[in-house]
Amino acid sequence: SQPLQDFCVAINDTKNGVFVNGKFCKDPKLANAEDFFYSRLNIPRNTSNPIGSTVTPINVAQISRLNTFDICLVRIDYAPYGGLNPPHMHPRATEILVVLEGTLYVDFITSNTDNCFITKVLNPGDVFVFPVGLIHFQFNIGNTKAVAFAGLNSQNPGVITIANVIFGSNPPINPDVLTKAFQLDKNIVTYLQSKFWSDNN
Amino acid sequence: SQPLQDFCVAINDTKNGVFVNGKFCKDPKLANAEDFFYSRLNIPRNTSNPIGSTVTPINVAQISRLNTFDICLVRIDYAPYGGLNPPHMHPRATEILVVLEGTLYVDFITSNTDNCFITKVLNPGDVFVFPVGLIHFQFNIGNTKAVAFAGLNSQNPGVITIANVIFGSNPPINPDVLTKAFQLDKNIVTYLQSKFWSDNN
Amino acid sequence: SQPLQDFCVAINDTKNGVFVNGKFCKDPKLANAEDFFYSRLNIPRNTSNPIGSTVTPINVAQISRLNTFDICLVRIDYAPYGGLNPPHMHPRATEILVVLEGTLYVDFITSNTDNCFITKVLNPGDVFVFPVGLIHFQFNIGNTKAVAFAGLNSQNPGVITIANVIFGSNPPINPDVLTKAFQLDKNIVTYLQSKFWSDNN
Amino acid sequence: SQPLQDFCVAINDTKNGVFVNGKFCKDPKLANAEDFFYSRLNIPRNTSNPIGSTVTPINVAQISRLNTFDICLVRIDYAPYGGLNPPHMHPRATEILVVLEGTLYVDFITSNTDNCFITKVLNPGDVFVFPVGLIHFQFNIGNTKAVAFAGLNSQNPGVITIANVIFGSNPPINPDVLTKAFQLDKNIVTYLQSKFWSDNN
Amino acid sequence: SQPLQDFCVAINDTKNGVFVNGKFCKDPKLANAEDFFYSRLNIPRNTSNPIGSTVTPINVAQISRLNTFDICLVRIDYAPYGGLNPPHMHPRATEILVVLEGTLYVDFITSNTDNCFITKVLNPGDVFVFPVGLIHFQFNIGNTKAVAFAGLNSQNPGVITIANVIFGSNPPINPDVLTKAFQLDKNIVTYLQSKFWSDNN
Amino acid sequence: SQPLQDFCVAINDTKNGVFVNGKFCKDPKLANAEDFFYSRLNIPRNTSNPIGSTVTPINVAQISRLNTFDICLVRIDYAPYGGLNPPHMHPRATEILVVLEGTLYVDFITSNTDNCFITKVLNPGDVFVFPVGLIHFQFNIGNTKAVAFAGLNSQNPGVITIANVIFGSNPPINPDVLTKAFQLDKNIVTYLQSKFWSDNN
Repeated sequence: SQPLQDFCVAINDTKNGVFVNGKFCKDPKLANAEDFFYSRLNIPRNTSNPIGSTVTPINVAQISRLNTFDICLVRIDYAPYGGLNPPHMHPRATEILVVLEGTLYVDFITSNTDNCFITKVLNPGDVFVFPVGLIHFQFNIGNTKAVAFAGLNSQNPGVITIANVIFGSNPPINPDVLTKAFQLDKNIVTYLQSKFWSDNN
Repeated sequence: SQPLQDFCVAINDTKNGVFVNGKFCKDPKLANAEDFFYSRLNIPRNTSNPIGSTVTPINVAQISRLNTFDICLVRIDYAPYGGLNPPHMHPRATEILVVLEGTLYVDFITSNTDNCFITKVLNPGDVFVFPVGLIHFQFNIGNTKAVAFAGLNSQNPGVITIANVIFGSNPPINPDVLTKAFQLDKNIVTYLQSKFWSDNN
Repeated sequence: SQPLQDFCVAINDTKNGVFVNGKFCKDPKLANAEDFFYSRLNIPRNTSNPIGSTVTPINVAQISRLNTFDICLVRIDYAPYGGLNPPHMHPRATEILVVLEGTLYVDFITSNTDNCFITKVLNPGDVFVFPVGLIHFQFNIGNTKAVAFAGLNSQNPGVITIANVIFGSNPPINPDVLTKAFQLDKNIVTYLQSKFWSDNN
Repeated sequence: SQPLQDFCVAINDTKNGVFVNGKFCKDPKLANAEDFFYSRLNIPRNTSNPIGSTVTPINVAQISRLNTFDICLVRIDYAPYGGLNPPHMHPRATEILVVLEGTLYVDFITSNTDNCFITKVLNPGDVFVFPVGLIHFQFNIGNTKAVAFAGLNSQNPGVITIANVIFGSNPPINPDVLTKAFQLDKNIVTYLQSKFWSDNN
Repeated sequence: SQPLQDFCVAINDTKNGVFVNGKFCKDPKLANAEDFFYSRLNIPRNTSNPIGSTVTPINVAQISRLNTFDICLVRIDYAPYGGLNPPHMHPRATEILVVLEGTLYVDFITSNTDNCFITKVLNPGDVFVFPVGLIHFQFNIGNTKAVAFAGLNSQNPGVITIANVIFGSNPPINPDVLTKAFQLDKNIVTYLQSKFWSDNN
Repeated sequence: SQPLQDFCVAINDTKNGVFVNGKFCKDPKLANAEDFFYSRLNIPRNTSNPIGSTVTPINVAQISRLNTFDICLVRIDYAPYGGLNPPHMHPRATEILVVLEGTLYVDFITSNTDNCFITKVLNPGDVFVFPVGLIHFQFNIGNTKAVAFAGLNSQNPGVITIANVIFGSNPPINPDVLTKAFQLDKNIVTYLQSKFWSDNN
């Protein structure tokens, strides 16, 4: 998107269920500093979930003024000993991540037909880039909790967590498709589809 | 991308390993009809591979004149009784597909946190849309082979076949990551990583 | 355009005559598979009109979910012995066309000052590209009907059929302009302006 | 296009026949004021040609610094008593025109299926807008010469003069196509194709 | 922005204080030539203000049809002997300017760390380009009034006059910030902040 | 910009002084994890300069893989008791900033004719947005050093520090222009132009 005025602060009022690409905006004369502000991103998040990580997004849903600007921010907390921000991708954004605490093993995988896997161990102060639409993850390989901040170039990047989408969609995907695609026994597929897939976002 | 001239026909000569976003182009005075042309898309493709489908892309690699134009075309052939274009997505394109022959069960899955699964059975003449970056598949549920054509709004949409990227990357992903992300036994993960992941593109 | 969410399914309700660039959208929670679907594109169209061709567009007017996605699809039927999709252009899209049946003589013409005319005879399975804004046509030079499918990179490409715009506009263009521009006798211009200009879209 | 640096001054040196979308640029440290400058746009142009108008474009070919910036400027001179900037369109730009001298009858025509013809008589100081890809003209209906300046939002808008493209392309279009499309006698078509089509650009 | 239809004529009715990126539009069937038209840009403007210049913009606020088209036009009048269009920039547009009358000393300054100052004296018929977001000015160094026209590639370029923004904002900037940033005595800063900053737009 | 492939890792080799919009890229087969990586952003920077702040950008000059992706990252260190990131703007990016340490008084100012000044005091964990092209600053009003990280949606946002551009350009701006524009005594202008303007980038 491209702003056509200084700012267009999003409103949540959808006017009888009608939407636009992005968001409706409020009168710019009524905009104030609170519209551009979000707080408490310094507070450590609870990571006691099965995946061991928590993503705190600051996108257009949190800062209404981000509407029409292609940018947002996230904080990611990782549990010690294996906290994982699992394989996922953003359909509408590239991500640049900086590690604040801990040691992360990170990767992204290129598209077909190479499926080249590019990986790196990151320590505090290290920066890494994950291109739009490519699958990537971060894995805490240290003994302490880890924290990272990241910028993404969309007001609403979207997140597609691969395992959740594949095995946890509602309604479930036809198990014959997954059996064939993932070369798994059908019993394993239906077992996986019966599980609860926690979402760290 | 946005064309800044009538056309900019791609050349493959990369001038000593140097590239640009998209492609270098040849002198427009030397462009001729062959640069804009590709043939034999009507010939049925062989689908005798483990997945039972073959994708034939006509993108900037096949028609050099597509460079700077956000469009390409694919033909997809599906084997009878279960030919599958497995769960995948295109990081740089939305797709509009029309069925020419056969009966396809198709879907796409929305991004978190809904992971809503939208599905439809398509017969010849039916048209369906798969949004940019969302995971989708087509599955031949008929007794005959199936054929579809699709337009995508990129000169080089990219294809990320989920199973291949997750289990078949080179080098392999750390199996601890996959064990945790997919809630699979580690033995199954390492077994899957040892398999050959055929690519239908 | 660029989608700022997974999808933004167009609604036709314009809320008291108010419009936006593109379309207003409905609540994404109410989206269903029918919004993404169109059928019967396999049925041959009637081409018994003066031009001998019929274009069947599947754009945002037919598939409401195409809104915000720069893509659409058309089917074109050509009568045997001279069915013509007459000289026209799309102000908002490049087109990639594949021939399914018949033999088409196709062209496009570059912009000034070259006005280079690039032409090709296409048979089933042949693919050709028509750049955004350039005038092009397809002419059935075979003895049988012809059929083509094409993808265009806009949700609403627009069609400007040159003869209709020049001689059939409402109200008519000042005939002195056309007499001078086309170097025609003024009587011929006024005669052409009095004719009925059929539209194959 | 979108600039990715302060400026990228075009060079004409194409490095052995290799091109890019837009232009190659010179070292920004070598840029100087002459790269951003063009003069003598105040000099009346000679309009003694069959069409009675002359267009003087200042695009990336004249000001090399326009490269990557979506903007250019034109001066248009019209002969008294019928000077015509004939029906044409720009495949890559919208145009905003201001009349400096004289009285112009201007129009543009919307795309199918309306082909609505919107027209206005403009006097000095009047401003009018011609949307991207739509056919438009200006016709001097006054007794004196006329002059207009216009801004277009492309570094290289392209110009497609309809009559020249249709009847003056090289090689010529198959006359059967034009006979059918324009509902003209074939003799008139071949006569028109034999003429010289002057270009006012 | 990118038009998704032939045109989308802006309306000022904001429907209960709700806005969109750009503008809401009226029913295209109700569009008429007046929507595309503005007059009297040939009339010299009064420049008897402290700065000695007047900018007359023709953007989406004046021509409602410019909505969705990235283009607008301005007329600038400069008083004799020092009329100044003071240092300013447009956050959303590149500008191409042509001098109609008078002699202007113009410049723009590149971004850090070079802050290179590119300057030129322009006479009638001279054309110059000011890149998006870079600070520039025009200064009448002749003995007569000067007039220029300019095209900008936005429907609403925005104008940020540096002195007005720095010393005339409402409420005022903390004077300690300006004292430090501009290396000025704090008394001068508070004196400047107490002045009236006239706006030539 | 918009990537047309998975990534296009910038090279600095400009091939005999020739450039493109953005950067030339190296062979994607030769890309490795180092191209996507930057380290030591956790190290506090020295802020003992006249302005009392240091900006450490991680853009395409530091991470070559950012080429074609509209994103970068900066670290900003502020000295205690008045460290100032002085009034500046980015011609090609919107910024989202998060405070890690200290207390910052921040603002941005809207474009004419309102010049509305929106301000906020930020503490650790607070997030604020600065729109593209609008002038803004951050001022450390706490007794300790402050640190912030920010994401910007450009690979090369550019920085225009207002005081440096106005008074420190090379060659200097004509002092008559600044005297008039800033309503300053000419002696003050020439004194300011003689100073050294330190750059915190």
